[in-house]
Amino acid sequence: MDANDGFRELSRHECLRLMAQVPVGRIVFTRRALPAVRPVNFGLDADGSVLLRTSVTSELVGAIVGAVVAFEADAFDSRTRAGWSVVITGTAALVTDPAEHNRLLRDGPRSWAPAPHEVFVRVAPELVTGRELTGGRTLYGVELPS
Amino acid sequence: MDANDGFRELSRHECLRLMAQVPVGRIVFTRRALPAVRPVNFGLDADGSVLLRTSVTSELVGAIVGAVVAFEADAFDSRTRAGWSVVITGTAALVTDPAEHNRLLRDGPRSWAPAPHEVFVRVAPELVTGRELTGGRTLYGVELPS
Repeated sequence: MDANDGFRELSRHECLRLMAQVPVGRIVFTRRALPAVRPVNFGLDADGSVLLRTSVTSELVGAIVGAVVAFEADAFDSRTRAGWSVVITGTAALVTDPAEHNRLLRDGPRSWAPAPHEVFVRVAPELVTGRELTGGRTLYGVELPS
Repeated sequence: MDANDGFRELSRHECLRLMAQVPVGRIVFTRRALPAVRPVNFGLDADGSVLLRTSVTSELVGAIVGAVVAFEADAFDSRTRAGWSVVITGTAALVTDPAEHNRLLRDGPRSWAPAPHEVFVRVAPELVTGRELTGGRTLYGVELPS
């Protein structure tokens, strides 16, 4: 799974364009000193920030606000063994500005599992990386001999 | 995204049955003190261990062997907003036993991006958790009024 093994690095522009195409990604954080991951639906703001909408009392908010987290999205085709993955790494912050909160109530992501006292969390796009898997040693879905 | 918000906790048996249905999951680990995540194709061993196949010289092997990692798989339907996610947390270990290595060469996962000097890494299923999202406030794909 190193470079030169059928992977192509994606530009920041490509990363954000691909990530905008999928509704669900995975937030990666630390919980009780252990690696933790949770899928969530999300939105992408104009600057590439990841926007989550969840309950202010959720365990997720307590675990990620103020911490550096990673947010991953991907899409793979198991037939062709091709696909892409993008990771945005940055600090997660609660949206506290009332004007921004109201804008996101209108234009931001809707929660798939609505909960009381919903807030928005923004993950700053401090690091945006992505890779495209172009099919490894396969051609039109047929595995080539090693 | 808390309990009681359209989520149902899954049993260990349900978790492993669902995870066996998908070809790609995401390994979650720490890299230079930052949360990191990478999608990989994988196999599930009879005891629920996650089996990865990758190059012994890969950055991934260096980052995860000997560490506690999380491995996540999921499937969601954006139309119905239903789906599931499963996380297996445990220590990642290189498979060093020659008999086990040979068994996995026959029966284990094939790498989607073959690389030289491939090895198998096993993530012990020390903690298996999963949740099913049963559609939130939607009914047959139609969003219900709040």
